[in-house]
Amino acid sequence: MKLQGPRGTRDFYPEAMAWRRRLEDAWRTVSVRHGFEEVDGPIFETQELYKIKSGDGILSEIFHVRHPQGDAEFAIRPEFTPTLARMVAARANGLPKPIKWFATPNFCRAERPQRGRLREFWQWNVDIIGAEGALADAECILVAVDLLREFGMTSQHVVVRISHREVVRQILLRLGVAEEKLTEAFELLDRREKMEHDAFVESATLLGLDGAKVERFLQMCRRRYPVGEIDHLARSIGMEEGFESLRELEEQLIGFGIGDWCAYDLGIVRGLAYYTGTVFELHEASGMERAVAGGGRYDKLIELFGGPKMSAVGFGMGDVVLTNVLQDKGLLPEDVTPQPDVFVLASSEAGAGSLRRVIADLREAGVHARFSYKSTTNVGKLLKEANQSRARFALLLGDAVSDGEGELKDLDTGDQQVVKLAGVADRLSV
Amino acid sequence: MKLQGPRGTRDFYPEAMAWRRRLEDAWRTVSVRHGFEEVDGPIFETQELYKIKSGDGILSEIFHVRHPQGDAEFAIRPEFTPTLARMVAARANGLPKPIKWFATPNFCRAERPQRGRLREFWQWNVDIIGAEGALADAECILVAVDLLREFGMTSQHVVVRISHREVVRQILLRLGVAEEKLTEAFELLDRREKMEHDAFVESATLLGLDGAKVERFLQMCRRRYPVGEIDHLARSIGMEEGFESLRELEEQLIGFGIGDWCAYDLGIVRGLAYYTGTVFELHEASGMERAVAGGGRYDKLIELFGGPKMSAVGFGMGDVVLTNVLQDKGLLPEDVTPQPDVFVLASSEAGAGSLRRVIADLREAGVHARFSYKSTTNVGKLLKEANQSRARFALLLGDAVSDGEGELKDLDTGDQQVVKLAGVADRLSV
Repeated sequence: MKLQGPRGTRDFYPEAMAWRRRLEDAWRTVSVRHGFEEVDGPIFETQELYKIKSGDGILSEIFHVRHPQGDAEFAIRPEFTPTLARMVAARANGLPKPIKWFATPNFCRAERPQRGRLREFWQWNVDIIGAEGALADAECILVAVDLLREFGMTSQHVVVRISHREVVRQILLRLGVAEEKLTEAFELLDRREKMEHDAFVESATLLGLDGAKVERFLQMCRRRYPVGEIDHLARSIGMEEGFESLRELEEQLIGFGIGDWCAYDLGIVRGLAYYTGTVFELHEASGMERAVAGGGRYDKLIELFGGPKMSAVGFGMGDVVLTNVLQDKGLLPEDVTPQPDVFVLASSEAGAGSLRRVIADLREAGVHARFSYKSTTNVGKLLKEANQSRARFALLLGDAVSDGEGELKDLDTGDQQVVKLAGVADRLSV
Repeated sequence: MKLQGPRGTRDFYPEAMAWRRRLEDAWRTVSVRHGFEEVDGPIFETQELYKIKSGDGILSEIFHVRHPQGDAEFAIRPEFTPTLARMVAARANGLPKPIKWFATPNFCRAERPQRGRLREFWQWNVDIIGAEGALADAECILVAVDLLREFGMTSQHVVVRISHREVVRQILLRLGVAEEKLTEAFELLDRREKMEHDAFVESATLLGLDGAKVERFLQMCRRRYPVGEIDHLARSIGMEEGFESLRELEEQLIGFGIGDWCAYDLGIVRGLAYYTGTVFELHEASGMERAVAGGGRYDKLIELFGGPKMSAVGFGMGDVVLTNVLQDKGLLPEDVTPQPDVFVLASSEAGAGSLRRVIADLREAGVHARFSYKSTTNVGKLLKEANQSRARFALLLGDAVSDGEGELKDLDTGDQQVVKLAGVADRLSV
């Protein structure tokens, strides 16, 4: 018998778990210092909740959940936004604005497992609700950038690609796409990198974008301008309409000092009716990996979930792609499992008699203290185990325990000195 | 439209979430200092995995999960032990012994929600695998006790009730229960507090325990002896067999200095074939609440999951009962949401121009810094918002920002002084 976990999920043995915690702690620390408060919802929700945002199509992409005696249709959460929208809608009036929330939960999606995409993953969600204007968009981007800086990344490693639904809408209208075909055009645009060129051209023609217009459009998508050069971008497109919000965003990003991380990329679309303004993705500079993070403004969603009309902007960052990128850049910390402060060992019978109490007292005082399960007083063997545990110190308990004394050995330097057991916790917790 | 989360689950708004994190952090901190390493598994597993330990009956108690295009039967995890056993079995040979693991995940059970019991809950799991002998049992109990101490609880608040499967087995044999009826007798014993007295007596009689013997048995279950008085316990039962392990455990508990937290209670059974030796439950002293934690020794389980023969002992502690007990004792911390270090505000146009950069720099330096989304330089209004945020300091940016200076106001004392912006992060992160 060889039992395995479900396909596309992970078993977190201690080393992998320590890294997951390190990442979650970084998400949390960065969120908190940017003034966000943590929230969470249930691991499963009604399927209805997901249909509100994504339609019936979502049912083929989520894990279905059922109470053994119930008939309600639930699903393991595939994303956080519907839960967030439900929670905001339920207490919209009582919460101080803007609402700045983050979450770091796990999600499941019924997708084919592949590089950068698993069936169970952890995702950091950062959202600002109830603040119109580009300041909130820029603050979200600042938070994402600050997380990357926390792991030693720079603007050489990652680019924030920024677009705006209104700019793209104006371009499509100019190229002759009818108002009623815009949704379809956005959908097509979103799928373009997954399509054959010919199929894309054919679909585009049906939307009123003939050959030359398609080429012109693709050209616009390929053009990149750094943030700070929005005039060049507008001029290259030959259009002023739709740029107001993007200009305001540029000013805010520069105000926060992160203009050098950001570039315009009109090819970033990110889904459909959901986003209403700024959209952005963080990509590894070479563009080879999936997006490290992505988000944008969604001003109509809270209302859709039964809340008042409230503007909103946010992003998600998954653990899988981020870990891959950190690894590729040589920035993944090696072994982040906790290091013991001390390994306590008995070198005599008297020492063995006191060992448990010394261990219990040290731990109660906050010291990470280990001991051997081998019943031996062979100091050589025990010191070997102490070294394997990566402890900073070994505390040797011999006959002097009756005088309240032991010997503290620095396992790096080998220095050894007699210490009073009563004071050793203070010394070790420094 | 009023959308709600599924029955028996919780939405964690910031204050509730901050408490959950505080609790999880305590679980983690205590586990680590006792030398345990954190692990985790998938949120769903195959139903097969749960049937190995609990039989087909488990299917009526778990949430069923299905991939929309698949036919495999999964379930949201109702407990951690099967995942743990699977993970240990898969790498049993490569892992240093004893394996000391902990986990703090969420679980779902299809139960009727009631006080102390929800459909989604968080549970701390602590296990030692590969160490025979009562030292490991005692270390598990020590860890549980240390967690309670971390929240200010004492042996006046909580009692560790201890029993041993072998002692109870010997008692039942002595009372005339046939060897082949022992499993049924344990099951009956486990259900006794949920049964009418008459129904219990009737079932007991069928197992060979007539009226007088039942009374004698129930009397034994009601008798409590503190740890340290095992001789009294044995004498009161009139039996020496089966006490060897319990005597060893007593010695270890006293060695760790936690004898005063523990008492013998032969009425503690905890399930069925699963446990093989020591069993224990931590109960609020009055006995009014469900168990705060429970566990015991399960020496046959790793083998059952395809691993080698390995002894094991562990316990689980849920978030719901613990929180209820802390609340009842007045030990639940009030508001544990993070307090901002500083609220930065602009008192002039020049200050407003610098504010975003000051904010970004402070946060990058690790300072929890907030600002107002209101576009005003009205210091009175802004200080009011600063106070509402519970920030320790306000940093006022006026025209002196051009000289790299601001004013730092202590929001508790009202003290205010001119500071260099370049050094303010160091000062605030102290």
